[in-house]
Amino acid sequence: MKIGFIGLGRMGTGMASRLLEAGHELVVFNRTPDRMRDLVAQGAKGAKTVAECCEAEAVFTMLANDDALEQVTNGSEGLLAHLADGAVHVSCSTISTALAERLALAHSERKQILVSSPVFGRPDAAAAGTLFLILGGNAEAIARLQPLFDVLGQRAYRISDEPAKANLVKLSGNFLIATVIESLGEAMALAEKGGIDRHQYLELLTSSIFNVPIYKNYGGMIAERKFEPAGFAAGLGQKDLRLVLAAADTLNVPLPFAGILRDRFLELAAQGGDRQDWSAIGALAAKDAAIPA
Amino acid sequence: MKIGFIGLGRMGTGMASRLLEAGHELVVFNRTPDRMRDLVAQGAKGAKTVAECCEAEAVFTMLANDDALEQVTNGSEGLLAHLADGAVHVSCSTISTALAERLALAHSERKQILVSSPVFGRPDAAAAGTLFLILGGNAEAIARLQPLFDVLGQRAYRISDEPAKANLVKLSGNFLIATVIESLGEAMALAEKGGIDRHQYLELLTSSIFNVPIYKNYGGMIAERKFEPAGFAAGLGQKDLRLVLAAADTLNVPLPFAGILRDRFLELAAQGGDRQDWSAIGALAAKDAAIPA
Amino acid sequence: MKIGFIGLGRMGTGMASRLLEAGHELVVFNRTPDRMRDLVAQGAKGAKTVAECCEAEAVFTMLANDDALEQVTNGSEGLLAHLADGAVHVSCSTISTALAERLALAHSERKQILVSSPVFGRPDAAAAGTLFLILGGNAEAIARLQPLFDVLGQRAYRISDEPAKANLVKLSGNFLIATVIESLGEAMALAEKGGIDRHQYLELLTSSIFNVPIYKNYGGMIAERKFEPAGFAAGLGQKDLRLVLAAADTLNVPLPFAGILRDRFLELAAQGGDRQDWSAIGALAAKDAAIPA
Amino acid sequence: MKIGFIGLGRMGTGMASRLLEAGHELVVFNRTPDRMRDLVAQGAKGAKTVAECCEAEAVFTMLANDDALEQVTNGSEGLLAHLADGAVHVSCSTISTALAERLALAHSERKQILVSSPVFGRPDAAAAGTLFLILGGNAEAIARLQPLFDVLGQRAYRISDEPAKANLVKLSGNFLIATVIESLGEAMALAEKGGIDRHQYLELLTSSIFNVPIYKNYGGMIAERKFEPAGFAAGLGQKDLRLVLAAADTLNVPLPFAGILRDRFLELAAQGGDRQDWSAIGALAAKDAAIPA
Repeated sequence: MKIGFIGLGRMGTGMASRLLEAGHELVVFNRTPDRMRDLVAQGAKGAKTVAECCEAEAVFTMLANDDALEQVTNGSEGLLAHLADGAVHVSCSTISTALAERLALAHSERKQILVSSPVFGRPDAAAAGTLFLILGGNAEAIARLQPLFDVLGQRAYRISDEPAKANLVKLSGNFLIATVIESLGEAMALAEKGGIDRHQYLELLTSSIFNVPIYKNYGGMIAERKFEPAGFAAGLGQKDLRLVLAAADTLNVPLPFAGILRDRFLELAAQGGDRQDWSAIGALAAKDAAIPA
Repeated sequence: MKIGFIGLGRMGTGMASRLLEAGHELVVFNRTPDRMRDLVAQGAKGAKTVAECCEAEAVFTMLANDDALEQVTNGSEGLLAHLADGAVHVSCSTISTALAERLALAHSERKQILVSSPVFGRPDAAAAGTLFLILGGNAEAIARLQPLFDVLGQRAYRISDEPAKANLVKLSGNFLIATVIESLGEAMALAEKGGIDRHQYLELLTSSIFNVPIYKNYGGMIAERKFEPAGFAAGLGQKDLRLVLAAADTLNVPLPFAGILRDRFLELAAQGGDRQDWSAIGALAAKDAAIPA
Repeated sequence: MKIGFIGLGRMGTGMASRLLEAGHELVVFNRTPDRMRDLVAQGAKGAKTVAECCEAEAVFTMLANDDALEQVTNGSEGLLAHLADGAVHVSCSTISTALAERLALAHSERKQILVSSPVFGRPDAAAAGTLFLILGGNAEAIARLQPLFDVLGQRAYRISDEPAKANLVKLSGNFLIATVIESLGEAMALAEKGGIDRHQYLELLTSSIFNVPIYKNYGGMIAERKFEPAGFAAGLGQKDLRLVLAAADTLNVPLPFAGILRDRFLELAAQGGDRQDWSAIGALAAKDAAIPA
Repeated sequence: MKIGFIGLGRMGTGMASRLLEAGHELVVFNRTPDRMRDLVAQGAKGAKTVAECCEAEAVFTMLANDDALEQVTNGSEGLLAHLADGAVHVSCSTISTALAERLALAHSERKQILVSSPVFGRPDAAAAGTLFLILGGNAEAIARLQPLFDVLGQRAYRISDEPAKANLVKLSGNFLIATVIESLGEAMALAEKGGIDRHQYLELLTSSIFNVPIYKNYGGMIAERKFEPAGFAAGLGQKDLRLVLAAADTLNVPLPFAGILRDRFLELAAQGGDRQDWSAIGALAAKDAAIPA
């Protein structure tokens, strides 16, 4: 299949590479062209503009935030202007539900199709094709692209006809992960101040009732106080939490845990920690308890 | 080994039964004698008083709370008065760290030994011998009783020489489970009000990044709004949270998530729900968002 | 002085009326023209467009929110296009600090002057000239308009050269008032559930240590459970709280009380109460405690 | 009237002195006898035991906490054992509602009368007789002692026949004051980080809508960052908040603001600040925002 791929950060590069290896014809674009080099060496065509990516059955985007996605979709050189009738924009970025709704409408008005496909998983899972994909959009379009989703992830969940709902699921999932970080931070502060070694404590938890990678990975970073280099920067986590709060605001859903997370990210940013991994908020409970760093 | 076992609720009965099946000589006691019948039929000796249980190398207690444990330890008929020199009190109840500390001292003054052994796991795990045991206390005593712990659980973690530290770990673990319930309640309220089926939502989460029984079981109860019969009553969960807060108060550890959980349990109790399963606090976020029950 | 006045809600009408009575020449504008009638009868000139108001030394605006203010400032018929060199826009609305910053710059680029002058006080204080005015902007311009401020308020505080800082003070003041509402709601719920009459309780507090109108007025509404007609609608209070949170987000200031207020307003809105007075959030603590309404 | 007075801290000394000046016959007792010297010089009789204070129509107690009050009421030398039939124990301490209930019963069983009379006001108000008294107890007894209350305070409120209800009102009042401290701390952090001088900000607020001593005094301490010497130590404020939370726990009243205050006091204590004035929690919002001290 002829595929465009826009956004070659660590996630996008892994995904594009998987599609290429599976034999698809890829045209890639990245604002910083350096990032295209490896994929071009693997056989992808490097585009000079977003428009060049648009001669394709499907164009994937994997970008940092709403602004970045709007820059590649809008304007005379953007996706909306250049995508063919019936072509599919597969939007993998973690964006606001509001943007997903506007974009779905804009594509639809141009007889293009938006499929939201945010993912759970980190760069290594992207490269290995073991992501989880959350799909929202037209059933037929999704069925047509199913071979691509099979290449990218270990499982794809079609959650709704409406693209924005997939984005809401993704946002709520990141909210849940952030609650794991905070709750581990609090529990470990309590245990440590009570005289228990936090590494031993974490090993106990994650080999018994919390035997799952999220608890192990984030718990490990908190126990080690090792938040750099960031796997997922606090600034991005904070952005996602803002989108969660925005969705909750629109839908009238009080979320007390999210309110606490909001303040944790602000405190971390106030202290200059927004480039650390977002699990760094998990060390703030210990700081409040005056546990030496 | 000659063993006493006091407290034959659903957890205690399963544990006592395991010990009996493993060939140990058991003297059991329960305030409500009916509860002893099945175990006696299996070969245990039924005691009329706590004191009768005390002619043993080790006496297990598995009781509902601090008060219940103090009733069997104190007084002229209690454990402290009757346990032999060098005998071990294996305290499995989820109690306050303060009581564990007092009790450790009291046993020590009488040349008896306290081993705290709170557990993670529900009645079915108790019956199957697949509990996780958290051990605090004298290393030699614990080594001596290791065959018993092997019978009771799939793994036993020795966390400290001090019994109370095992209790702190157990309390913090229950705190973590309560945060899972609350966070799922909030995330599901957001998703549902956003138009996503909450069962489908939960299946997605628990087959991807939260693929672990705690999320599946509690998430399932919240999705079903099925909180009766209680596997673990809200009143007991609230008691444990109080003990978490008491420990945090003593240790000067601010715990913002625990503050929110505190209010959830109070709200549930105000509405008469304290006999429901403790996961019923996971439905309060939906209520606040005016999602129809 | 020749003065324009845009925005004739209950606040704006009272203020415009004061200026008129003090002998100033007034041109008034309101989107719904009916609202101009009384002032015209008192001698004001009714304008058909915003532009007509702009032949003046100073133009006051008193509008509901950012959007409404942007509608009268931007565009070919707006304030920015029509205000004379050196003329002053006195912006009394409770708006975001971000809009105040953008507007200050835009006026400055056109050699116009922005003075922010948000107020504390309700419609009766506006009509009586007993408002408190919070002024931000050029000192000379403010000095020139001092006679107008003297007519409008019992005291005017110049807080900064930067208009946006006055808006921040106003927003933080509304945040403080909202904390008064919530704290009274919680305290009264506790007292009432403890068997104390809430009217008697309030009288005690507000004739002793909280002897100040804000506690009396809002406490009275909570005690009476009388939230209609709204003096200040919950929807507007929620808007202000959003602006507080937005400012806190920009400035990296965690505000735990604001997080709780956020959820209160969402809960009220979810229940359809956003047209009630904003003090209606003060009844939610009683609801959580299952106190009959 | 013949009066006993037990507990001569700064509050008690001022109150006892007032009663003495009004011509009453006073027998005073304090655990640390030094504290009695001045009052004895003014004409009071210094007692060597609590029992000596009990030959009186009324015995006032003004002590630091539940424990201190229980020490003077219980035991063979205590108030309960020595107070005459029909004599009144006027309990002015800020104690738990649970202790007030137990004590009311114990006095009643001995044909003695408990009147709870906690107060609002600081040592200077105690010395000047301008306290506010909150009275709970038998109406006739209170009427009999009215001349004493007139000497002690500017106003006395009889809130209930049940002594404990007066204690609940007092506790809820201290909760409200603590919310004032926290809300000022948050608002001032926001204003200051936004570039506004915090002293000027406070002056604006407290000369306009918050023109009342509590906002002025506590706001001033926060603005000055001057928390020593403590007018009311954080440790005592924390104790009162614990009693508020205990009452809320018994009555099933969720109190989200109280949960946040709880964590503030724990954070302050963790940093060794529990001997500072309780308004020191008002500086924690600035710390979280990384505002330099």
